[in-house]
Amino acid sequence: MSEYSRALHLRASDDGWTGELHDDWAIGEAMNGGLLMSLAARATARTSTAAGGHGDPLSFSAVFLSPSGPGEVRLEPTILRSGRSMTTAEVRVSQPVDGADVERFRALVTLGDLGRYADPVLKTTAAPAIPPPEECVPSSDAPPSMMMNSGFLKRWDVRMDPATIGWALGRPSGTGEMRGWIRLIDEADIDPAGLLLVLDAFPPVSFDLGSVGWVPTVEFTGYVRAVPAPGWLQLRLTTEHVAGGLLNEDAQVWDSTGALVAHSRQLASARFAS
Amino acid sequence: MSEYSRALHLRASDDGWTGELHDDWAIGEAMNGGLLMSLAARATARTSTAAGGHGDPLSFSAVFLSPSGPGEVRLEPTILRSGRSMTTAEVRVSQPVDGADVERFRALVTLGDLGRYADPVLKTTAAPAIPPPEECVPSSDAPPSMMMNSGFLKRWDVRMDPATIGWALGRPSGTGEMRGWIRLIDEADIDPAGLLLVLDAFPPVSFDLGSVGWVPTVEFTGYVRAVPAPGWLQLRLTTEHVAGGLLNEDAQVWDSTGALVAHSRQLASARFAS
Repeated sequence: MSEYSRALHLRASDDGWTGELHDDWAIGEAMNGGLLMSLAARATARTSTAAGGHGDPLSFSAVFLSPSGPGEVRLEPTILRSGRSMTTAEVRVSQPVDGADVERFRALVTLGDLGRYADPVLKTTAAPAIPPPEECVPSSDAPPSMMMNSGFLKRWDVRMDPATIGWALGRPSGTGEMRGWIRLIDEADIDPAGLLLVLDAFPPVSFDLGSVGWVPTVEFTGYVRAVPAPGWLQLRLTTEHVAGGLLNEDAQVWDSTGALVAHSRQLASARFAS
Repeated sequence: MSEYSRALHLRASDDGWTGELHDDWAIGEAMNGGLLMSLAARATARTSTAAGGHGDPLSFSAVFLSPSGPGEVRLEPTILRSGRSMTTAEVRVSQPVDGADVERFRALVTLGDLGRYADPVLKTTAAPAIPPPEECVPSSDAPPSMMMNSGFLKRWDVRMDPATIGWALGRPSGTGEMRGWIRLIDEADIDPAGLLLVLDAFPPVSFDLGSVGWVPTVEFTGYVRAVPAPGWLQLRLTTEHVAGGLLNEDAQVWDSTGALVAHSRQLASARFAS
């Protein structure tokens, strides 16, 4: 059983599903939001397919309500609409804290059959030409002081394009772009729900604009466009607008065949050294 | 009272707010989704401010469950989190049909104070250089047979960049881009909630790739980044990936000072002539 499968293990409960968050997947003091989103997408897919609905996440929009910690997590999907080609659902994610049930985030999810949406490709966006993984900078070279040198980072083999790594050495480019390769450290395959985790796995793009400290996600919407082929995934982060400490972070993921398999936008809050 | 203010008029009800949809704002047989989103954002902002929360929509993520028609619409916001700088809410939108309450869409909304997020602008995306409105193609030149030659279209003064208008003459460029100017026909100012309406006001970008017929929105996420200045708004639609009849449509809106004031992505379903 891969680390990833273990992290996304679900048990049926009265109201939906229960999982267990391990601080192997923490960043700083909070659990990685991407892991929670993958877990929520998986739980929603199970509830949907159990009711005869669709099983692949197509869109996933979440608002984050409170930071989650290690331990039990509860996932309660509700089907809002069962259509011929798509199922629409909502999922509530919470943790027990001192006997109370505290909501961590809520998401709206569209599910379908990704096999239906593979062809024909009428337009797509090609992966940027970057050096191969063996010529990129491994995350194991990151300075130990870096916030993201955490449990979560150790789950991944990340290779950053040397052209977009200046921020890690105290020289952010000011461009607001990060490019690189990513795969799980044990080389386990990523499934469609796991792409939500990948979309949020790089350090915040605001680091390339000089932001300091934690960059909490306000809202995240991810789209899965195809089942990823095994192997390295290529990830690019960009931003369109950074103002008053609020920015959008856009992510794109291509698989080892060069197919665009997922993209996302999140609204996040960042502090900038003045 | 402007047409826009009248369309967005809300009355307090037991569970939230009630509005009235007029087929002046219909496209084909359904109401325009953007109008519903603006109405829902406005209702959510009222519920939020009544509880001491924030009043400007920052993010708005909706899943569409059934097409809405003219008549009464019910908007029921629920506050999920009240923070110092942001309020997070959910809003349920429904219509009465034969005595039953039928849900039209559900959205997750983040609200804040846009005045806080105006400065400093550390990065932004400039509006494309297009001809001024008087040198662009007015929507009144659209062939009467066009689907969007509807009540909704008559609410707007739209001027399309001649370089991206080939699709309207049966010659889609295949690029997947539309650019142009837009303002309300009575030149009423657009408020932040109204930007959601603007983001969804152009014909579907898939028309420029040869799609035919209606292009239903599956999921829509819009972000309002600043209060728009009065005057013309510039709108650009693009797409990153079109496969198997599913596409993302990305919109950006700049105000008359050239500031990026809103952007969005939606997942939509399109049919292509083979």
